[in-house]
Amino acid sequence: MWQLFQFPLCPFSRKVRLVLAEKGVAHELVREYPWARRDEFIDLNPACETPVMVDTETGTSLIGSQPIIEFFEETVDKMPMIHGDAAHRAEIRRLVEWFDEKLFREVVEPIMNERMRKRIVDRAAPDTKMLREAMRIANGHLDYLDYLLDHRRWMAGAGLSLADFTAAAHLSVVDYLGGLDWRGHKQTKDWYSVMKSRPGFRPLLGERMEVIVPPQHYDKVDF
Amino acid sequence: MWQLFQFPLCPFSRKVRLVLAEKGVAHELVREYPWARRDEFIDLNPACETPVMVDTETGTSLIGSQPIIEFFEETVDKMPMIHGDAAHRAEIRRLVEWFDEKLFREVVEPIMNERMRKRIVDRAAPDTKMLREAMRIANGHLDYLDYLLDHRRWMAGAGLSLADFTAAAHLSVVDYLGGLDWRGHKQTKDWYSVMKSRPGFRPLLGERMEVIVPPQHYDKVDF
Repeated sequence: MWQLFQFPLCPFSRKVRLVLAEKGVAHELVREYPWARRDEFIDLNPACETPVMVDTETGTSLIGSQPIIEFFEETVDKMPMIHGDAAHRAEIRRLVEWFDEKLFREVVEPIMNERMRKRIVDRAAPDTKMLREAMRIANGHLDYLDYLLDHRRWMAGAGLSLADFTAAAHLSVVDYLGGLDWRGHKQTKDWYSVMKSRPGFRPLLGERMEVIVPPQHYDKVDF
Repeated sequence: MWQLFQFPLCPFSRKVRLVLAEKGVAHELVREYPWARRDEFIDLNPACETPVMVDTETGTSLIGSQPIIEFFEETVDKMPMIHGDAAHRAEIRRLVEWFDEKLFREVVEPIMNERMRKRIVDRAAPDTKMLREAMRIANGHLDYLDYLLDHRRWMAGAGLSLADFTAAAHLSVVDYLGGLDWRGHKQTKDWYSVMKSRPGFRPLLGERMEVIVPPQHYDKVDF
């Protein structure tokens, strides 16, 4: 049985969970807070970051969202995530990298730091200037997604792909933390509403991270 | 003909160049400084980052080091970079991610900021405290590489892989900027000496970034 080490507001774990659900890979969730720096977890992943997957039968361990997803992409035929010709696959991977690096670094990570980490780990008040700046940048990213969806049915083109699940994973964490203002972003809002209604998304939206309450619209498909 | 938009001290462009050389993919170099924010380059890549590759015949564009490399991995058989079974491929990708994200963020990027960007773009003096801290962390990363190479012939296992070229690309930039102290890191030093002697590495080591002079040992295979 596969075990997935993760915590509810880890965007990279959400990305993996959405893909595992679409591909129908059975797995068990193990809650892991990287900031606790548990020795056994560091032994598994010296970078001490979620997600990590372990096959309890063979001992195989997979570390990091993209290596995990490429592994299941190569071994499970159901619901291809990186599809089409090599150039289209490069476009899917470009957007995945954009969300995992640029969107994460400029928006998701600072908002997680201010609204989750400071509250749970540091017991400090958020820096409102940092928050405002991250939310301003988030708005620019939503503009770019609107632009993509004006020209394409899904993020990377005509077919639903890993680009959509990656974007949805990151945005869902920011949305949980009240960091998104959806006004003026009809295209992305409509797309996100469709993503939210996928069966694999529902369990995620029902979970809560202790003490942190999401806004009312967070788990609603129509919002 | 493929064009590669890059600049000499971009670690991600170096990673791509090493792979293109090993695979024998003909290409032309176009020098691009992302900080100049050239309009035509932003049209190519809205993230305004190197590397970008463009096929001048078909107009196909590939953006970002990992999407570019996966593209050529899928279309060129020579010198497989992500090889072995799915679990081994996950281990190669884990290390690539480690170097591209963790090593880059903690070591390569701050040293590039202090020793290259501030000199060329901001015309400011480096922050010696930031530099010292990045070099301290670099030392810890070299310890981890020593540990890997104590247990394995190459970074990810028995075969030379993308993990080795990625590590070498990042370390070569830090080494150019005088950020590595090789003392006490015999395993990694020996491995790097072998990497440096690969034909694809030589042109890189011969290039200079204007006004910034590397240390004497930088381009020597025996150092």
